[in-house]
Amino acid sequence: MVCAALPAPFSLNADGDPETSSHDLLSLRWPGPPRNVLFVSKEDNGPVRDALIEYAKHVKTTYPAVSLIFEPSVAQDIEPELPFPIYMYGRGGNTEYCDKVDLTTTLGGDGTILHAASLFATTKSVPPILSFSMGTLGFLGEWKFEEYKRAFREVYMSGAPSPVPLKSTDEPQYRDDVVQASRNDQSGWSSARGKSMGSSRNSRVLLRNRLRIGIFSSTGERMPHEPPFAHHDHRCEDIFALNEVLLHRGALPHLAHITILIGSPPHQKTLTTAIADGFLASTPTGSTAYSLSSGGSIVHPLVSSLLLTPICPRSLSFRPLVLPANTPVTLRIDEINRGKEIEVSVDGVRRREGLKAGMEVRVVGEEVRTAGAPGEREWVGGVPSIVRSGGTADGDDHWVGGLNSLLKFNYPFGES
Amino acid sequence: MVCAALPAPFSLNADGDPETSSHDLLSLRWPGPPRNVLFVSKEDNGPVRDALIEYAKHVKTTYPAVSLIFEPSVAQDIEPELPFPIYMYGRGGNTEYCDKVDLTTTLGGDGTILHAASLFATTKSVPPILSFSMGTLGFLGEWKFEEYKRAFREVYMSGAPSPVPLKSTDEPQYRDDVVQASRNDQSGWSSARGKSMGSSRNSRVLLRNRLRIGIFSSTGERMPHEPPFAHHDHRCEDIFALNEVLLHRGALPHLAHITILIGSPPHQKTLTTAIADGFLASTPTGSTAYSLSSGGSIVHPLVSSLLLTPICPRSLSFRPLVLPANTPVTLRIDEINRGKEIEVSVDGVRRREGLKAGMEVRVVGEEVRTAGAPGEREWVGGVPSIVRSGGTADGDDHWVGGLNSLLKFNYPFGES
Amino acid sequence: MVCAALPAPFSLNADGDPETSSHDLLSLRWPGPPRNVLFVSKEDNGPVRDALIEYAKHVKTTYPAVSLIFEPSVAQDIEPELPFPIYMYGRGGNTEYCDKVDLTTTLGGDGTILHAASLFATTKSVPPILSFSMGTLGFLGEWKFEEYKRAFREVYMSGAPSPVPLKSTDEPQYRDDVVQASRNDQSGWSSARGKSMGSSRNSRVLLRNRLRIGIFSSTGERMPHEPPFAHHDHRCEDIFALNEVLLHRGALPHLAHITILIGSPPHQKTLTTAIADGFLASTPTGSTAYSLSSGGSIVHPLVSSLLLTPICPRSLSFRPLVLPANTPVTLRIDEINRGKEIEVSVDGVRRREGLKAGMEVRVVGEEVRTAGAPGEREWVGGVPSIVRSGGTADGDDHWVGGLNSLLKFNYPFGES
Amino acid sequence: MVCAALPAPFSLNADGDPETSSHDLLSLRWPGPPRNVLFVSKEDNGPVRDALIEYAKHVKTTYPAVSLIFEPSVAQDIEPELPFPIYMYGRGGNTEYCDKVDLTTTLGGDGTILHAASLFATTKSVPPILSFSMGTLGFLGEWKFEEYKRAFREVYMSGAPSPVPLKSTDEPQYRDDVVQASRNDQSGWSSARGKSMGSSRNSRVLLRNRLRIGIFSSTGERMPHEPPFAHHDHRCEDIFALNEVLLHRGALPHLAHITILIGSPPHQKTLTTAIADGFLASTPTGSTAYSLSSGGSIVHPLVSSLLLTPICPRSLSFRPLVLPANTPVTLRIDEINRGKEIEVSVDGVRRREGLKAGMEVRVVGEEVRTAGAPGEREWVGGVPSIVRSGGTADGDDHWVGGLNSLLKFNYPFGES
Repeated sequence: MVCAALPAPFSLNADGDPETSSHDLLSLRWPGPPRNVLFVSKEDNGPVRDALIEYAKHVKTTYPAVSLIFEPSVAQDIEPELPFPIYMYGRGGNTEYCDKVDLTTTLGGDGTILHAASLFATTKSVPPILSFSMGTLGFLGEWKFEEYKRAFREVYMSGAPSPVPLKSTDEPQYRDDVVQASRNDQSGWSSARGKSMGSSRNSRVLLRNRLRIGIFSSTGERMPHEPPFAHHDHRCEDIFALNEVLLHRGALPHLAHITILIGSPPHQKTLTTAIADGFLASTPTGSTAYSLSSGGSIVHPLVSSLLLTPICPRSLSFRPLVLPANTPVTLRIDEINRGKEIEVSVDGVRRREGLKAGMEVRVVGEEVRTAGAPGEREWVGGVPSIVRSGGTADGDDHWVGGLNSLLKFNYPFGES
Repeated sequence: MVCAALPAPFSLNADGDPETSSHDLLSLRWPGPPRNVLFVSKEDNGPVRDALIEYAKHVKTTYPAVSLIFEPSVAQDIEPELPFPIYMYGRGGNTEYCDKVDLTTTLGGDGTILHAASLFATTKSVPPILSFSMGTLGFLGEWKFEEYKRAFREVYMSGAPSPVPLKSTDEPQYRDDVVQASRNDQSGWSSARGKSMGSSRNSRVLLRNRLRIGIFSSTGERMPHEPPFAHHDHRCEDIFALNEVLLHRGALPHLAHITILIGSPPHQKTLTTAIADGFLASTPTGSTAYSLSSGGSIVHPLVSSLLLTPICPRSLSFRPLVLPANTPVTLRIDEINRGKEIEVSVDGVRRREGLKAGMEVRVVGEEVRTAGAPGEREWVGGVPSIVRSGGTADGDDHWVGGLNSLLKFNYPFGES
Repeated sequence: MVCAALPAPFSLNADGDPETSSHDLLSLRWPGPPRNVLFVSKEDNGPVRDALIEYAKHVKTTYPAVSLIFEPSVAQDIEPELPFPIYMYGRGGNTEYCDKVDLTTTLGGDGTILHAASLFATTKSVPPILSFSMGTLGFLGEWKFEEYKRAFREVYMSGAPSPVPLKSTDEPQYRDDVVQASRNDQSGWSSARGKSMGSSRNSRVLLRNRLRIGIFSSTGERMPHEPPFAHHDHRCEDIFALNEVLLHRGALPHLAHITILIGSPPHQKTLTTAIADGFLASTPTGSTAYSLSSGGSIVHPLVSSLLLTPICPRSLSFRPLVLPANTPVTLRIDEINRGKEIEVSVDGVRRREGLKAGMEVRVVGEEVRTAGAPGEREWVGGVPSIVRSGGTADGDDHWVGGLNSLLKFNYPFGES
Repeated sequence: MVCAALPAPFSLNADGDPETSSHDLLSLRWPGPPRNVLFVSKEDNGPVRDALIEYAKHVKTTYPAVSLIFEPSVAQDIEPELPFPIYMYGRGGNTEYCDKVDLTTTLGGDGTILHAASLFATTKSVPPILSFSMGTLGFLGEWKFEEYKRAFREVYMSGAPSPVPLKSTDEPQYRDDVVQASRNDQSGWSSARGKSMGSSRNSRVLLRNRLRIGIFSSTGERMPHEPPFAHHDHRCEDIFALNEVLLHRGALPHLAHITILIGSPPHQKTLTTAIADGFLASTPTGSTAYSLSSGGSIVHPLVSSLLLTPICPRSLSFRPLVLPANTPVTLRIDEINRGKEIEVSVDGVRRREGLKAGMEVRVVGEEVRTAGAPGEREWVGGVPSIVRSGGTADGDDHWVGGLNSLLKFNYPFGES
């Protein structure tokens, strides 16, 4: 069974209110309603499984045109519970689904979102991600699971003409034919069931830039990546990380010596050789992950940058660095590490095969291109994350609000 | 005596090699040779004074069309030593020179460059700065004084048609008349003396973004700034800082309580109330100044951002933040500070009058606008700093090279 | 009116249980019941004033032999509310009380305890301090105000022969005469009213070491201290700080250059010249105060040590130091600061007169001498702080428990 | 071949000058000249091997009564080069030498000294260590190799009656018989060849405290240690570390959860559960090793303390702790780590078998006992490190001098 491909990609538009701090959020517009929705969830967790089934049933009932896709192990687990056919997402033989996901939705924590992003680690274009947290909100997850009906509808309708009369399951639907006449109706928005919405509101999207990563042998040849970051056809191309790439000595008794080079040949310049437990290159999104544990600053996801953070450096004076996102950075395993393997991990997943002396990890911030007229510009690149709307958070910078609740940032000590 | 105004502003062009890390440097092009050059130097320093006189004589002799401008106290000091008329730069009565400086050149350290930038703290457009260090290079100063002849010539000729035959002082000049015929000659490039240069090379410019700063009373009215950051006509407009604005408790026995708000009304959101010795809002350029002492990360000057760094916070969990440059940030003196004054300093210059409870400092990264066709885009805003060329540094990112020499960044400890 | 002097000083005995982590706490034993109790409280605070009056009345009623002493301003304020005579503690003319305080009790926060300690900043022997917090417990304050009856009784009876029959206010007291015969009874324990206590339990005492501080002119002569740290007769001797001595540039635009010398002449050795906003020498008790804000480690009050912590140093590699408490340390204002004054503060109180170039602050951890046979050793020096007993904290290291509640120490970030 | 046992242990006396900062150094006194000297050196290093041979020949020639002991691999390597018999030090079958080493001398860096200390990791009494560095001095190594003749003589003669006439190899020795009469001569000092020394000077010793470490199963039973820290007879006793014990997640993708308990049962109190890459318990000596890389303060080796330092904690507020050396600390692998193994390393040597959930590492600072009359007190415990004498360092605190040269401590940044 094959899902229908989406006729045209979504667009992201910069039509935010320039007077607010959210003016760098983008506006999501579907050319037609999303068809193929990938559900990614934390596994081996009862409450998450129950929530997933409830969520999936709601989506299929309310938006019958939607095809629901799951990862193989989850699909096998929950298929018996669902009264409708589902699809499996997989690499290897099932790669055809890969390009056909219109929307990804996650249930779990930041780890689940990282995993979902890793499913698109080999592609430059990532579908929007709508993420739900079952417990406390993480840095990446935007929505509470209780909000799933409103959240999914808002995303589904994003870009639909206003007003869109929806099929109500409570009352007869007489107006289908009329609506079918519009271009959008042909795409199926009118088939959505539920109460009519007022003025439609486009979902707001935070475009999280990724890190582009290549691994090279000591003779300068590209090396293949390992699953889940491997390309289907064993191509040796760059992959993309949402948080960071880590070099670490792992269980080695000696410190890693990692030479940092800035720029591309022939204009490469050696910054320094870090002698440390490890070394991180992170995105701003990753600034609140491992980099923070290692002393890095907190960088807003919209600061176009690339963070270099040493892990336990044998230096009193190594301070974390923030470089322009478009800076090519090479992390080379120094010759002094000869005979040993330095571990390399992407977004927390360790590569089975470590790096030997002379090998390099080359990183640069993902290029996010724009095209089109002002106000209608489209974006390519990045992970489009649906930002939570409504309530007091509306119109605000969700990131600012998250700092205090997530980090207990600025908690005073001593007598108050 | 009045200097002639420059017919048209300089332009900065993004024509760098995209393959190098220097592709974010801009290229300086004068419509005609710069006329009015402001010399800013460290005062009360014998060697600097001697160097200044040598430098000034060289410029006037080699580029006779140039008018040399000095700050009043320096002008009075060195005028007797110079066999040609000079001009005085001054605020107050002599403000007419303010808009007529084509190029600023400094002798001294980072403090001198900060001071030179402060002379343009009230204007959106700052002339290029060519800075020389007498001793060790600082973070901001690019050139060694020994290089002054080459450096000045490179800047002076930047944008001139190639080849430009220069007047040699060593041999007769026969070709003047012919060259005068060209458009550029009318602007005077042909009057420069010296050996003919080969293909002219445009100076490369690092555009350092500034911080836009306003001070507001507890009732929300703008308050005037104090010299050297005051506007000539006591207008209460924003001023611009190259490094940072600092709020500090100074000699107060109690900690400052400073509320940080993000965004502009009505979408302002409280980030937190910092309880600390002080609080810094810095540019990336300022990331290697006070912010670094206080634990901030090192941020490359081309990362469009704004740094918030607490100074000795009474919190174990307050970590420095890096926000997008266009984020409006308000630092409000909390009511708990009632009856006390919090000191405010801009680029190291303390305001005589402190801030009382309820008053606010509002900052945002300076807007740097572009205009014109690709490849010929012009910039408005920022401090155009002439980057050192030649030698091994050529084509490289000077900033990377400076890290190790300036910071002893990554110096290892223990057994080597 | 003069208080009777205590016949003999209290003793502190190391009879703790060696199997517990509290074995370094000492045991308080009065030779007779304490007579003269100094009450120190936060001023200009209604609830504290009410609590103070309640507390004072209880002490006088229950322990009629006790003389209550207050600081002058407090004495004048609350005298009308008390139906019994009180005494005033004062420096200057009233210095006779200074040596006669048997016990100090404080109401307020850490600031109040610091102030109480400063009243004994010129003496080597400090009476025990029983401190109550009105709100959240600070690092120094041990008891909640609700516990004042039990706490005071425990301290008052500490070292009394067991059992001590107390005068009950509910029943006739027949045994006074008999008890008077014993030495202790002459001191009045039997005059205490209230229920008979079971086996008396000695209060446990944490002896907090202080910092011994001398200020010297550039020619090596001792300089007088300023109130509240001044000696009565303008002697120029060392004073004692409970938390720290701070050198800070204050409102100076330039960084302080402070040379750190280790050891006493002629074996002094220069450690380094710190270029910084300021410099701290702290006790372990002070490690959770200003030093913590400035990046210092948290040091348990029983680690015999002296902390050197720079404040915003212009160095990437200056790390806080922990030296043996008996290390003589000299902080000398470097000649480069000529013409400027560096501020000096002791326990948060700034000296009006700053330090000029060449002047020195000499510090060393207070010497705590022991004398007597094992198990009956007496202590001289330090601030004997009565540790909270009872409940779950009993037998525990109160300091360990305080870390998490006071610091939100180790609060995790991100997804839980 | 068996070395003769030393008749009596050395003593360490606190007879330093109380006016200097070195008054906490001890004075080494042999009851007779040291007989059995263990040579430990860096292996697989040509220059070190050459130096070792030169050093060994000098010692045997000048002090013929000395027996030279080497580790097996070194012994086999250099035996052919030496014209005299040597002894092998070994665990397992050759354990008899273990108790008979009077003096250890090392050639190499800090790693070699750590290794030498590990040879005594199972014994409470460690012979003095005289360490030479071949290159830059480390934190632990005191002497430059060029000084080996003077250094060895000073140690050898330490405690000998003064003056001791030495056998000169350059002139006939007539006075042997006379000297033999003294008690010390019977011990053999007079057999040393070389020039007569003036007043003999005792070597000064820095007694470095170690960390006492036990590993326990989840049911509270002691577990055996692994070589090189294993006891000869597979006893399960505590071992001693000079620097630190490290718990680390190693190659695990998940963070380690380590619960820190303070005190011994039944008075144990939970400090916190650290969620981190790892966790360190260090001696002050170890404060300039891994703990420093992880953000710990620099603690002088004479501060009797125990450092707790998290490695990359997932908390913004976890600050390194310094506790009294006698604080029992338990590091328990939290149940959440079930199914995984946390790596444990002692002084940089990783245990092959990791720790599972519920297992504990229990540490406490080594107890250093004193006995005897004042001025003649003896020490038991610690690693007696011979401090470099002579030159400008004499009478100084060598540690202070080492800070700047080893750490580039306090190197300023920016314009000077």
